Amino acid sequence: MFEIKIDDARYWRDCVGAIVSLVDEGSFNITKEGISLKAMDPSGISMVSFFIPSKAFSKYSIDKNESVGLNLENLNKVLSRTRDNESLVMKDSDNKIVLEFAGEKSKRRYKMPMIDVRKNVDKEPNVDFDANVEMVEAPLKDILKDASLISSYVAFSASKNQFSVSARGDSGELEENHEVDSNAIKKIEAKASANATFNLEYLENMVKACPLGSAISLWIKNDEPIKMSYKIGDAVITYYLAPYMES
Amino acid sequence: MFEIKIDDARYWRDCVGAIVSLVDEGSFNITKEGISLKAMDPSGISMVSFFIPSKAFSKYSIDKNESVGLNLENLNKVLSRTRDNESLVMKDSDNKIVLEFAGEKSKRRYKMPMIDVRKNVDKEPNVDFDANVEMVEAPLKDILKDASLISSYVAFSASKNQFSVSARGDSGELEENHEVDSNAIKKIEAKASANATFNLEYLENMVKACPLGSAISLWIKNDEPIKMSYKIGDAVITYYLAPYMES
Amino acid sequence: MFEIKIDDARYWRDCVGAIVSLVDEGSFNITKEGISLKAMDPSGISMVSFFIPSKAFSKYSIDKNESVGLNLENLNKVLSRTRDNESLVMKDSDNKIVLEFAGEKSKRRYKMPMIDVRKNVDKEPNVDFDANVEMVEAPLKDILKDASLISSYVAFSASKNQFSVSARGDSGELEENHEVDSNAIKKIEAKASANATFNLEYLENMVKACPLGSAISLWIKNDEPIKMSYKIGDAVITYYLAPYMES
Repeated sequence: MFEIKIDDARYWRDCVGAIVSLVDEGSFNITKEGISLKAMDPSGISMVSFFIPSKAFSKYSIDKNESVGLNLENLNKVLSRTRDNESLVMKDSDNKIVLEFAGEKSKRRYKMPMIDVRKNVDKEPNVDFDANVEMVEAPLKDILKDASLISSYVAFSASKNQFSVSARGDSGELEENHEVDSNAIKKIEAKASANATFNLEYLENMVKACPLGSAISLWIKNDEPIKMSYKIGDAVITYYLAPYMES
Repeated sequence: MFEIKIDDARYWRDCVGAIVSLVDEGSFNITKEGISLKAMDPSGISMVSFFIPSKAFSKYSIDKNESVGLNLENLNKVLSRTRDNESLVMKDSDNKIVLEFAGEKSKRRYKMPMIDVRKNVDKEPNVDFDANVEMVEAPLKDILKDASLISSYVAFSASKNQFSVSARGDSGELEENHEVDSNAIKKIEAKASANATFNLEYLENMVKACPLGSAISLWIKNDEPIKMSYKIGDAVITYYLAPYMES
Repeated sequence: MFEIKIDDARYWRDCVGAIVSLVDEGSFNITKEGISLKAMDPSGISMVSFFIPSKAFSKYSIDKNESVGLNLENLNKVLSRTRDNESLVMKDSDNKIVLEFAGEKSKRRYKMPMIDVRKNVDKEPNVDFDANVEMVEAPLKDILKDASLISSYVAFSASKNQFSVSARGDSGELEENHEVDSNAIKKIEAKASANATFNLEYLENMVKACPLGSAISLWIKNDEPIKMSYKIGDAVITYYLAPYMES
């Protein structure tokens, strides 16, 4: 049994939106510390790791640790109906999760079945990254759009003072250089220069839910998975994406 | 012969928009009192009844009662091209209807053929309703969107102090309760509690043309058609929709 | 070898947008006077003639006259990614064109292959037009939308004091009259009245890129091609479209 309340339902909607942009189902692990979820996308080349501390909720009552498997796309649809000024209570009942949205003199209750998720994911990739780039949300989204005109893949390259992007396809080639302190790059920490190529569609899904104007951290190592992370209020969302290796 | 003028063509556009959201053809009956139209949608499970009094027009001249059958979708397209500050004259000529939009130093004239409508509708369903709910436009549209996430059907339930909505489907269940004086409900008059289920797509079409912020009246009786009505200026539009009976 | 710089990259984006709305590839002729392009659309019923003087650029350095054949749709995509406050340098290198967008501390470089265009166009139709109509952009776009409800073709008719438009189809007929000094027509010069019919989709593509609120000039002669022209800053874009002859 658990009962969790959030005063502004839109915040939970935004958190779930960041998860569902990559995965369609997953298990929320509810513990005294907070709620976490780790899941791989159906193709298995990317994963998401989410954590929100219990202090983000105005009520947080649990008997014991719980694992709640849900169809995240259905959950996301229900949350998309959130109105302004609504609180949200989530609790379990008969192997279902109950979501109660309450506005002034109006109440809306959804029940959704819990499911067995296809595949549980326990741990995150363990990579000793070479470079950490702190970027800003909008310029990164622009960079991905630039590259998508040229190719389905993009190469990221980080060195001490510069973050570079390149793509090449039948219609032409793209090369971008962004220096530290440009409007795109806030900070670079690099023990060595690092370069890897990634699927653009996945990267686009990963940045999609980042709050406007927020910082996004990237960790890169030659031909290894990229790690991307940003905060949504008190919650932290982290994504991993395997590199694309030209065969 | 008739010649009818409306000073703001956008008003007539909005009236026809409310009719065409449910039916694709129909006959306008033009009498001294005003213009009325009754028509069923092609599937026969809903009908629309429209009336606008002659006083809504700045010129209203008729020889005798006339019945003008029109393809309402074509009429709606033509009216969608209305600019600001245009007047509209409608008249008949050689079995065609002529629409003359006049702005300053510009004139636009459309001629459309009159048609024989498939099926004339004379009278409205005669139901002794149990409950009348006066709602507000935006919250009702929200309710229909909530339910459409879950199902193609929605159950409405009215009692003395509360209007409830429920839907159930593979992805979950929805239950909403709105009290009198909530932002959704202005008034409920109920001799008995009433409950019936309806096709959501039809309900959505029925509320679509309701002017922003307007009141919408619903009349409900157990497992009988719903009646919905709202005003567009001096005009009144009324819809009926048969209940959905689970087989 | 050439190297051309424009301080506001968005201006060149708008110029190319006006060309690409009709043709998908073409050769830019770069001379001391400026850059010109003449091309026919793939169907051969319309052509575009573009000219921008060298003074529109902040740097304009060429060795000799050059002809640069490009896939204009790809060029247009690249230019669509222009950010605010970016300058653009265009130069050639190894049979490729290089586009360098430079913002503050960020640089983006595209390389695109030069191509052999299918068909070069040297001269414009030589018609002794009977009427010249000076219109305003928005009302002309409205007129084309009005007509497209009724037909795929529209007839334009110009006389001393009036510009008329007509269209006829299964769903009805349209006739519009716009007098000189209406909000649509600024000036008409007609030696004789002129009337011709054109494909609406082409006309819509021709006006699409006209800057908001700009003047558009039309030249008409009975059953001859229409000429349409407008300015984008210092650049001039001219279109020709063959008349539609009912068979």
